[in-house]
This record gives sequence, C-alpha cells and structure tokens, in this order.
Amino acid sequence: MLPNSFPEPLVHPVVVSAPGKVILFGEHSVVYGKRSLAFSLSLRTQLTISASQGNVELHLPEISVERSWNISALNSLYEKLKEFRKPCDTKPVPMSEEESNVLRAFIGISDKKELQKSELGLIAFFYLYTKILAHPIPFSIKVKSEMPVGAGLGSSAAYAVCLAAALTRISGQINYDNPSIDLNKISKKSLELISEWAFCCEKIVHGTPSGIDNAICTYGGCVSFKSGKIDLISPPPLTIMLVNTRVSRNTKTMVESVKEKYTRLPSLMEPLFTSMDNLAETSLSILSDMKNNSISNDIIKLKFSQLCELIDMSQCLLSAIGVSHSKLDNLIAIAKDCGFHAKLTGAGGGGFGIILIPPNTRQQDVKTCMNVLETNGFDTWITDLGGCGLTYSTSYDKMQFQ
Amino acid sequence: MLPNSFPEPLVHPVVVSAPGKVILFGEHSVVYGKRSLAFSLSLRTQLTISASQGNVELHLPEISVERSWNISALNSLYEKLKEFRKPCDTKPVPMSEEESNVLRAFIGISDKKELQKSELGLIAFFYLYTKILAHPIPFSIKVKSEMPVGAGLGSSAAYAVCLAAALTRISGQINYDNPSIDLNKISKKSLELISEWAFCCEKIVHGTPSGIDNAICTYGGCVSFKSGKIDLISPPPLTIMLVNTRVSRNTKTMVESVKEKYTRLPSLMEPLFTSMDNLAETSLSILSDMKNNSISNDIIKLKFSQLCELIDMSQCLLSAIGVSHSKLDNLIAIAKDCGFHAKLTGAGGGGFGIILIPPNTRQQDVKTCMNVLETNGFDTWITDLGGCGLTYSTSYDKMQFQ
Repeated sequence: MLPNSFPEPLVHPVVVSAPGKVILFGEHSVVYGKRSLAFSLSLRTQLTISASQGNVELHLPEISVERSWNISALNSLYEKLKEFRKPCDTKPVPMSEEESNVLRAFIGISDKKELQKSELGLIAFFYLYTKILAHPIPFSIKVKSEMPVGAGLGSSAAYAVCLAAALTRISGQINYDNPSIDLNKISKKSLELISEWAFCCEKIVHGTPSGIDNAICTYGGCVSFKSGKIDLISPPPLTIMLVNTRVSRNTKTMVESVKEKYTRLPSLMEPLFTSMDNLAETSLSILSDMKNNSISNDIIKLKFSQLCELIDMSQCLLSAIGVSHSKLDNLIAIAKDCGFHAKLTGAGGGGFGIILIPPNTRQQDVKTCMNVLETNGFDTWITDLGGCGLTYSTSYDKMQFQ
Repeated sequence: MLPNSFPEPLVHPVVVSAPGKVILFGEHSVVYGKRSLAFSLSLRTQLTISASQGNVELHLPEISVERSWNISALNSLYEKLKEFRKPCDTKPVPMSEEESNVLRAFIGISDKKELQKSELGLIAFFYLYTKILAHPIPFSIKVKSEMPVGAGLGSSAAYAVCLAAALTRISGQINYDNPSIDLNKISKKSLELISEWAFCCEKIVHGTPSGIDNAICTYGGCVSFKSGKIDLISPPPLTIMLVNTRVSRNTKTMVESVKEKYTRLPSLMEPLFTSMDNLAETSLSILSDMKNNSISNDIIKLKFSQLCELIDMSQCLLSAIGVSHSKLDNLIAIAKDCGFHAKLTGAGGGGFGIILIPPNTRQQDVKTCMNVLETNGFDTWITDLGGCGLTYSTSYDKMQFQ
C-alpha cells in the first residue's frame, strides 16, 4: 500500500544527506581486476524534501536546475511509461531505452546530443521518481552539495543515494527501524535497497559504474573493491587536503588512453597493475594496524609514514601509466616542499589530488601549504575520510561552504 | 720482451681518449638481474703521455693531483710488491689486499679512512703501472676530462681505459694492427685486454662494478647488459642534453635504499623491476628499428615518440622505487614545459638527468630549454650518444670545455 499523502514526519522538511568519496588507491588498475580503495568524504550532498502546493519542484542550484511540474503533467508521463512497465514494478531495475526516450521527451531533450549535467540530473530524478512512486506525489526537493559536481568525487552517486532514500521513504518501500523524526538508524536491508537504486541511477550518468560510488555514498567508511566484489571496511581516522587542479578531466578519455597503452605495451603495463594491486593490499593491512587502539604514538607515526610512502608510489605508478598532468605534478611538488605526500585521485589527467595530513601536523603547516596551493591556482578543502554514510534528519543544518 | 725505452711513436706525445657513458634504461633494476642499456658520450677523457727526464709525472687537474716520483723511489716500490707477485704477472688480475697496503703506504694514505678521489686516482694509476710495466719507466701523463668527475658518467672507467691503453702500449703487451702514429684501428683482442685491465681498476674505485662502464668506455656505442652478459650494440644517432642537478649523490646509499625498500615491499617492487626489464627490451627493439636506413621520416618520428614515452615511464618507475629527487623532478618538469622528455640517469637521488633531443628539433627550442635550466641552477651539455670508444692519436687536439 502506497501512501497518498506524506507520512507524518514530512509535515516538516526532511533532510537526507550522503557523503562524497575519494579513491585512495587503485585508480585505473581497478579496470584490470585489481584492488581499489575508496573512502567517504566529510564533504556531503544534502537533499531537503518538503511539502508543496500540488507541484513537484526541483531545485538543483549546482547544476542550474530550477523547475516545477504540475501533477497532471506527471500523470501524463506515468501514462506514457505504463506500457513499458509491469504493474507494481518498483524493484531496482535499470532504465530501459524506451523509458529513457519517454523521459527525454518529457524533459525536453533533443535526440542524440551529448547530455548536459542538468539533463542527466533530471533524467536520474524522473527515473527514480516514476520507478519508486507508483503514482505522482507533489513535493519540493532542494539539493545542495559541498563538493564540486562532476569532478569524480561521487557527487552523482551522493545525489542518487539522497534521492533514492527520500523517495523510498515517501513510497513506504522501506521499513525504518524507527520511522520517527530522528532516523539515523537505517536497517541494512533498507541501505541495500537504496544503494541498489543509486547503482541503477549511476548507470544513467556513467554507463558502466563499478558500484563503488553508490556503496561508499550509502554506507560511508571505506570500500575495498576487487573484481566486482565490494567489502565494507571501518577505517581509522584519516584527514586529507582535497585539491582541485581546476584542469577539467574526462574519465572516459583517460580510461581509453590507459587501455591503448596497455594494448601496445602489455609487458610494461601488466606488472605495474600487479604492483598497484599489491600496493592497495598493503595499504589495507596498514589501515587495519592503525585501528588497533593499544598501539603507541610511535607506531601510529610509523604506519602513517608507510601510508605516505604508498601514496608516493601510487602517484608515480599512475604517472607511469600516463594519467598525471603537469598541474598535478605541480601540486605534488608543492606538497612535497611543504613536507606532505600527495597523489592524484580518480581518473587523473587533471581533476583532483589529495594530500595526506598525518595526525599531530601543525595547523600552521597545513595553512602554509593551502596558501601556497591557492596562490598557484588550486582550490583546497580539508576533509576527513571514512565518515558516516547516508543520514536522515529533520533539522536543517545550514551547510558550511568554504 | 719489454722495451727499456719508448717505442718510436712516443718520441712525440701520444694522446689516448675514451668516452664517458650514460645509462639510458635499467638503473637499479640491473642490480636485480634486469636489462640495462648504456651509451657512450661524445664528452671524453683524454690522456697525453710524453717522455720525461727520469721521473714519473702525473697531472690529474680534475682531482687535484700534481705529483712526480723518481725512478729510484719506484724501484723500491717494485721491490716491496715483488713478494706478492709471481714473475711476469702481467695479466689482468685484481689488486690484492697486500698490494693495496703497499700502494697506500707508497702514496701516503693513512689507514682506514674513506679514500678521496685523488687517492683513488693514484692507487688506480700505480696498480696499473706496477702490474703492466715489469719495471719502472719514466714518462709524464696528463689527464683532462670533458665530463664531471665522480658524477656517474664513467669518468673513472674512462680514466682507467686511457691508462690501460697507454701502459699496455708502452709495455708492448698488446699487438696493434698498425703500430704507427695513427693507431685508430685497435684489434679486438687488444680492446678486450684494455677493458679487462680497466675492469680490475674499477674494482678499486667502485668495489663491485658491473663491467658496463669499462666496456662502454673501451668499445663506445651502446652496451646492453643483463645478468653479467654484455652485448655490444651499434646504436642509431641520438642526441641528448646532459643536465647536472648540482645535487651530490651517493650511488651506494641509493642502491642500499632500494634494497631496503625491496626487502620490505617485495610484492610492490619486483613487478616494477619486471616492467623496467621489459621497458629496456622494448627500447632495444625501437633502437634497432631506428637504424633501418630505408624507413621514412614519419616512422623515425614515431620511433622517437615511442622512445620518449619509455623515457617518461622509466623516470616514473625510478621515482616509484624512491630514487628521484625534488631537483630531478624540477628538471623533468622544465623539460616537459619546453616540450621535451627527460629522466634521471645513474643512481639518482641527485646527480644527472638526460633530455632526449629528437632529430629536427629547432636549435632555438633547445637553447630556450638550456637557458631555463641554467637560470634554475642546472648545468647543461649537449652531447651525442653512441660515439666511438677508445682512440689513439699523436696530434694533441685542444679539448673544448664548456
């Protein structure tokens, strides 16, 4: 039975929030069946859902979407989609081509052109809306993101996770352990369902997502991924500086350039992926050692220095397979000059880098490094890794943007 | 039968010259049984031997040696060495500890301290002198080097090759095809003997030399080395810019730091050495393709771009095993900005880098790059790779020092 009106808590706005992610190790080698490690960021995407007067309103300022649809328009959309859907087809299944065509027409996207971020955001929304809600329900959704959109930091997965969490809540599809105002405790089964919906949604944006992003944005913490198998890991406290090179990167192009090099020079490339795999495995064991509460400060320091060594090696190997960029090299050199260790994160060729900030680092040293980077045209954020995944609350906490 | 006086050509000064060397690929991985490639430089060491009035005079300005010994002092030295030597022991055999002690005492080196370059140069000289010449012969030797001494550019091997060539000539140990003034054509057997003497001499300076340096300084061209086996290769024309970071490096320290990392992280390091091995093998095949006279300019261009790609990868892998340095990274970044490809050469941690200069590069682009590097505190030389090995001549060509 689906509700025709909002459940009680939605009388007040409900805020759903999901973290962004960074890859620490295993970029590109993951495509070749090697291990990769991703962590949640303390930078988050926040979705506020509230009642509206008969319309569905969508405010996505980061991707310049400010639109509303009345219920009769949505009823027509449901009518058009009906022939491609089985009754009560509310299980996570990817969008079919027919459904895609109907949604594109509804949103007003002309055929065959490459989709803009705003268009992908709208398709993702209506895919989840029409799949999860058996009939149109009016509400207003506003999404704000603390992280840059489309930068490989999992913003699309965080958006999808927030949408899936909000919509499954409204639909009554998932059973919360405690369906009250404070819904911080969400059952494992509910999280699985939300992650699965987000995965289907990611297929719209990324084609063939690995499943890492939706997992990390749902569960938080750390995800270890190899050959399709996802393991959730509870990581030790880690802090990084996230650095934007302001050089736009194209994941697909980078993956293809590595593939070309791999095909041409397999005897050089395959051992590098093997080394990257062993590097990620080694880092898992270091991270596990770090969580031992009884270890001394000296051992913690040693483990961090070992992690820094792996960060250096990882950057060199990514550079060897051809996915660094002069601006990333510049960032790594600046970090080194300031006594830190840095690497690119994600597909490379631009995009983001990360600098590990060991515990007990002097605030002043971090600030100096940030200043040098910003003077050299980089954007910087300090963020913790491995924080919580999806959360619900009804108190709208004003978000802090740097 | 050994001559008591100089053979005819030595009435005029004789000039012996041997090239320096650079490693193109295989630094460090060579220690783990992988392939390495070294090339002769057009920067050379030149030894002039001329008659003197009863003394042995040694002028080694680069290592601040300006000394002479009279024949009676040398006769006493021979007397002291006699008990450790078999009669007519003039075959290349390494210096024994007893001989070393006698030579150290003769030169005036106090026990147990680390030897200076000048002291190593003197021990090497007297080792070869007393081994190759059955009794003392007076002459004056002057050595000048176009390359920096003790910088990993094979200066000690070039010095040893020149000394061995000059002394075996005086001793009559080797048969020249044409023992006239112009001795450019030296028999294979003679070269083998000279290289072997130089190898024994290198043991004094380097402890456990690979045999690459004495081979390249004797034969010139390119030497491919793997697991103790040396292959001589005739390389295509290659030009490089040799760049001194002015950061002193210690080969032994670097080799030990790699060993430590290898012992600690074998599963990460071993695949990197495998990749380095395959990289060197791939470069051999590219170099072989380049020598085909019938290939078009487009193919030459393609082959050079493939070689540049290997140079980039090699640098990244050397950096991954921890032997780069911020000054080397700086040099590589500058070269990249100028449109070139660069890597460290030798043990790393400072020392020298090389920048490949493809054919048809505009002179102006090379000059611009040199200017930027020199402004940033580097020394630069343009030099050809793969030139001739040991040469003799009686015409003293004034050496060009940059």
